[in-house]
Amino acid sequence: MINNLLIIGCGLIGSSILRACSKKKVVKNIFVKEKSKLNIKKLKRLKNKFTIVNDLEQIIPKMDLVIICTHMSEYEKIISSVSKYLNAKTILTDVASSKEKIIKISNKKLKKGISWISSHPISGSEVSGPEHGSENLFHNKWCILIKEKKTNIKNLKIISKFWKRLGSKIVIMDAKKHDLIFSLTSHLPHLIAYNLIKTATDFERRRKYNLINFSAGGLRDFSRIAASNEIMWRDIFFSNNNNLSRVIDLFISNLKSFKKDILKNNNKVVLRKLKDAKKVRKKIIKIKQDINKPDFGRN
Amino acid sequence: MINNLLIIGCGLIGSSILRACSKKKVVKNIFVKEKSKLNIKKLKRLKNKFTIVNDLEQIIPKMDLVIICTHMSEYEKIISSVSKYLNAKTILTDVASSKEKIIKISNKKLKKGISWISSHPISGSEVSGPEHGSENLFHNKWCILIKEKKTNIKNLKIISKFWKRLGSKIVIMDAKKHDLIFSLTSHLPHLIAYNLIKTATDFERRRKYNLINFSAGGLRDFSRIAASNEIMWRDIFFSNNNNLSRVIDLFISNLKSFKKDILKNNNKVVLRKLKDAKKVRKKIIKIKQDINKPDFGRN
Repeated sequence: MINNLLIIGCGLIGSSILRACSKKKVVKNIFVKEKSKLNIKKLKRLKNKFTIVNDLEQIIPKMDLVIICTHMSEYEKIISSVSKYLNAKTILTDVASSKEKIIKISNKKLKKGISWISSHPISGSEVSGPEHGSENLFHNKWCILIKEKKTNIKNLKIISKFWKRLGSKIVIMDAKKHDLIFSLTSHLPHLIAYNLIKTATDFERRRKYNLINFSAGGLRDFSRIAASNEIMWRDIFFSNNNNLSRVIDLFISNLKSFKKDILKNNNKVVLRKLKDAKKVRKKIIKIKQDINKPDFGRN
Repeated sequence: MINNLLIIGCGLIGSSILRACSKKKVVKNIFVKEKSKLNIKKLKRLKNKFTIVNDLEQIIPKMDLVIICTHMSEYEKIISSVSKYLNAKTILTDVASSKEKIIKISNKKLKKGISWISSHPISGSEVSGPEHGSENLFHNKWCILIKEKKTNIKNLKIISKFWKRLGSKIVIMDAKKHDLIFSLTSHLPHLIAYNLIKTATDFERRRKYNLINFSAGGLRDFSRIAASNEIMWRDIFFSNNNNLSRVIDLFISNLKSFKKDILKNNNKVVLRKLKDAKKVRKKIIKIKQDINKPDFGRN
């Protein structure tokens, strides 16, 4: 059991870690550093036992584990301010969705001998804030742990055990591979969703048609993804911009070829593309990455 | 009450009409023309009362309403074959997702004096086949009725009443406006979803990364839409190809500008785009076009 855990930034993910650690007795004492007064008010309504802290200088030397759960754009400042109080026995981790740039920052800002093991639990929602957290958020979900040349293997094992106790399934990869994979499975889908909603609303404004009224035929699904937290997603897009740019180009090139096939009534090619895409859904259901109900069980 | 209804093609939509008409007693006698032996076998398991027919020459002159619910690519053949047996007292309708081209076909193939009122119920699913139909499929959903210069207003009212009794809310517009609106709210989202899945699987094959494993971060939502019936969607893409081509161009142009903003770290512009998109979700929830639960209530 970990004795002392500090969660820095306690929104959806931070408060889910808090709830799960408390419920599953993974940690003895939980401390929370949160700058938003509104979030603190919401956190105080939780029944879980934890302590709100302000003074990092006093608290950090006592910690076994520190998890940064703020927006990525705050990482540089936070790492700078915690670095001076950290000692070698404390493990530092985070939950960011994009890794190469924040690992560069940590290499620059952290003093030598501090163990940073970067984590990415693949769980979230279009809602944010501590009131939406859940003790089951990580249950049966992937958690990616980043292993680089310098990674301390002993501490990697400790972090792996920590996430497993919260219910996660662990995969280990390097930051480069992580950022490439998630540029396609998560960052591009979000950008596409935002862009589709933008295209629809631009068009609506120009034509004065009430498009949103008729969003049940497909658009509404994209609107859920495009309702995700804007600070979080700006940070991800900026942080993983090079991979994202490359997969945007692939996407556009495929879309142009699709358009050509459609305009030419290219029956065989279009049917093959649609059939191939359909197979992926079956695989996703089979490996339990989504619910096996038509229309996500909405109706 | 309508006396005699013939449903031509009885998959998801046809069998939902069958179930709803039977349950809500909207029609006295229901007849079904279905060419797939497998579908007939599935239909025979339903508890609703209806008669499977083969001989259109005998049955059509007795009908008050005929609804075509086959794939759009079969319309030309069907309209040609039913036209000769139709008389002025029978109303003909359909449920196609794209209208301009099929109305042109009907103008060419239907004999004079026959009333064609085109319908588009905005309801469906990624699954198909009569076993997935539901008597509630149209409940509180939009049904678009097409009104052109030649439309018989008396029959438009009869069709409007018919769909209302199945639970639909009615909107009337012309085919041109219909096809433009749905190119953006439905046809483009489907094409985008198919294209995103294609981009991911191409990439997976080339890089030998198991992307689909990590689809929970966004990709899985697109895979549901991309699991829709390939014949139906090929027909829609081909039928509405001009509008679709135009909105693809708008989408690509917006995506390129998004990419530029991201590569330039254009904070203000990116944040505004993300915030604007978020507002649309609120509107969609408010007008009850989607479920008001985070993550569609999946977790």
